[in-house]
Amino acid sequence: MPIGQRISGSDHHRASGRPIAFVTVALVVQKFGGTSVANAERIREVADHVRRGHARGDQIVLVISAMGKETDELLALAAAVSDTRPGRELDMLITAGERKACALVCMALHDLGVPADSFTGSQAGFITDDNHSNAKILEIAPARVQRALDAGRVPVVAGSQGVSADRDVTFLGRGGSDTTAVALAQTLRADACELYTDVSGVYTTDPRVCADARKLPSISFDELLEMTAVGCPKPAMRSVEVAQNYGVRLHIRSAFTWEQGTWVVKEEPAMEQPIIRSVTPDASETKITVTGVADRPGVAAELFRKLADAGVNVDMIVQNASERGITDISFTVPDSDADTASEITWSVADDIGATGVAADRDIARVSLVGAGMKSNPGVAATMFETLSQHQINIEMISTSPIRISCVIRQEHADAATQALHEAFGLAG
Amino acid sequence: MPIGQRISGSDHHRASGRPIAFVTVALVVQKFGGTSVANAERIREVADHVRRGHARGDQIVLVISAMGKETDELLALAAAVSDTRPGRELDMLITAGERKACALVCMALHDLGVPADSFTGSQAGFITDDNHSNAKILEIAPARVQRALDAGRVPVVAGSQGVSADRDVTFLGRGGSDTTAVALAQTLRADACELYTDVSGVYTTDPRVCADARKLPSISFDELLEMTAVGCPKPAMRSVEVAQNYGVRLHIRSAFTWEQGTWVVKEEPAMEQPIIRSVTPDASETKITVTGVADRPGVAAELFRKLADAGVNVDMIVQNASERGITDISFTVPDSDADTASEITWSVADDIGATGVAADRDIARVSLVGAGMKSNPGVAATMFETLSQHQINIEMISTSPIRISCVIRQEHADAATQALHEAFGLAG
Repeated sequence: MPIGQRISGSDHHRASGRPIAFVTVALVVQKFGGTSVANAERIREVADHVRRGHARGDQIVLVISAMGKETDELLALAAAVSDTRPGRELDMLITAGERKACALVCMALHDLGVPADSFTGSQAGFITDDNHSNAKILEIAPARVQRALDAGRVPVVAGSQGVSADRDVTFLGRGGSDTTAVALAQTLRADACELYTDVSGVYTTDPRVCADARKLPSISFDELLEMTAVGCPKPAMRSVEVAQNYGVRLHIRSAFTWEQGTWVVKEEPAMEQPIIRSVTPDASETKITVTGVADRPGVAAELFRKLADAGVNVDMIVQNASERGITDISFTVPDSDADTASEITWSVADDIGATGVAADRDIARVSLVGAGMKSNPGVAATMFETLSQHQINIEMISTSPIRISCVIRQEHADAATQALHEAFGLAG
Repeated sequence: MPIGQRISGSDHHRASGRPIAFVTVALVVQKFGGTSVANAERIREVADHVRRGHARGDQIVLVISAMGKETDELLALAAAVSDTRPGRELDMLITAGERKACALVCMALHDLGVPADSFTGSQAGFITDDNHSNAKILEIAPARVQRALDAGRVPVVAGSQGVSADRDVTFLGRGGSDTTAVALAQTLRADACELYTDVSGVYTTDPRVCADARKLPSISFDELLEMTAVGCPKPAMRSVEVAQNYGVRLHIRSAFTWEQGTWVVKEEPAMEQPIIRSVTPDASETKITVTGVADRPGVAAELFRKLADAGVNVDMIVQNASERGITDISFTVPDSDADTASEITWSVADDIGATGVAADRDIARVSLVGAGMKSNPGVAATMFETLSQHQINIEMISTSPIRISCVIRQEHADAATQALHEAFGLAG
């Protein structure tokens, strides 16, 4: 599609219905950050990639987040200076990282003869609430970005930031630049939003575990949201939800090889739909088991409300069948939340009549993800059979319409992943 | 003076007429930067100093510039990324340094229970022209700063920055934070503007050269502007001129010992006025001599216009008496400009009929500075006698109403300084 020829909403949907590979885009939002812009050389490489697209006639809007580990470094500096670290000041501090990366990318573009202008979140028109360090976007008024685009320039927007009604600087939180990029793509009605990372796309499983892992040309939003694979690109959940709600087409790809990555699109009834999309191992969680819990209403509620109030991120929850009026409850939390979760669980143990609390870090979760699963009841059975054939014991099971997860011993994670990748014919 | 009890303009003048040591201030602008806020420990020390003033009931406004050598680091990063380095983007990059330091100081204040809010140049109301990397302040609308003050809070303003009419971020240039502080002090009608540095004030000479060098409790603006001593605090020229024009009282003091420093004030007729205030050695310049120059109008103009166009910072200029229609011109430039100055001088040598150009780095300039000099013609004579008594040859002489500078061999700089410091009775 020639540059400048914008497409209407309905065309837009037809466009995303086409075979992805053949869609050429006129207006694309590209997000770079972290390792992709970690040093001067990387920044120049990113600028050269943008130059190529600009030369092809694409209209490109960049969203840049902080260089390398700069956000961590700024947080460490704050911790060294202050115990209180008020949110307003923390946001003023952290957003300096994006601002810096943004200006550097702009300079590199100028060197290559690509006209570009940097914009802070405020200049780009990102109005947010005043919930510092985790602000929500209320409105985007991208007049300056649009003017730059119309003038044939490349707007370079500082990610994860905006300005509150009181005109204070706000930070959208870690990973907020993905949200900035998706929200901007939606507001500008871009044809695609490209999230550049250090992996080349979404694979059928972790390539480090299975040599024959295959890169997926596309997956659905639901599938991406179910994925928790190590080594699998994880755009910030918020950004994926925004993209899904507004039908923004995401392209997850590499800022190092520049090859085509994986498109994340609305599930199309027409789309050829394999039963299983991927096998995703995850060894980053701890299993907590509460034994001898009184089997009466409100018990689970009391426990998980307390955990939620403490900000503990509970993933799987399984309650075993009740015996003699008592039962066991098991759940998983990120290893980093394990200690907090244990303490809280102990603190309510008496109230809920629990006789014991056990935390087990040596577990792994292996998940099958695939939208096709919904209409294929046999999948769970095949998964359990495959694991048992390999003498791998299943300790917990939880399912969603498009995911089945089994908790097993961590030492069996690779074997289970390889066995399932093969059993469901995912190899290249 | 009790907090909040603001003083009128006329009182203000009387106030600055009082013996400095007894003036207690109600509203003071304090500027910190560089080594004073180089790391977390220094930032906490600065915050504790501010806490003490705030506890005394002073109203304090802080102006903060970048930590340690951060501005240099950002410029190095820009150079590594880009050859063009457009001013708009350079300003976006560099101002991130002040922003960062500003937020950190605020956090440290919160830890000590001092309510404080950081403000970018834009938030503090600094409107500038769009002359990027060297912007001039057009107007200051410090409504937010005033509101914070009125609420008993400490406004912490990012130095050396503002926003242009196009709402682009602008940088006032190196040393611009001094200008931010002085301009803000004038706008807020502050009782004083304290510029904190790593030296404890202005001395009668370089303490490293003369053990008995004495710290001056106060000097006049004219005297400060004439000072070029190594190890003598050098507030940005612009800021001193602004302070002089608007009668802002400057206090140059140490952010390490916190002792009383040196006040820079309007020359008060009443003020006891020693003839000589200080002896200032300076070994940082190169002497360039152009020989056999045609002694006709326009020759000097042609040479120094070319040097000015090249941004060469010429200091002393001496033209010797003419002989047979030809003459010699000597001038001094910073060692860093010496090569450029030589090239340019050679390039115009033919036009001006010069027969030779010689650059000499092994010189030093020793200057006497003192407002009292104006009415004491004997000073020059005493200076020349003192130097000759020590067999120190004088190669160039230049004078201003309140300064006499002699260029001598660099190896004699210390001896000359010690001899003059003694001859004019400056020792403590």
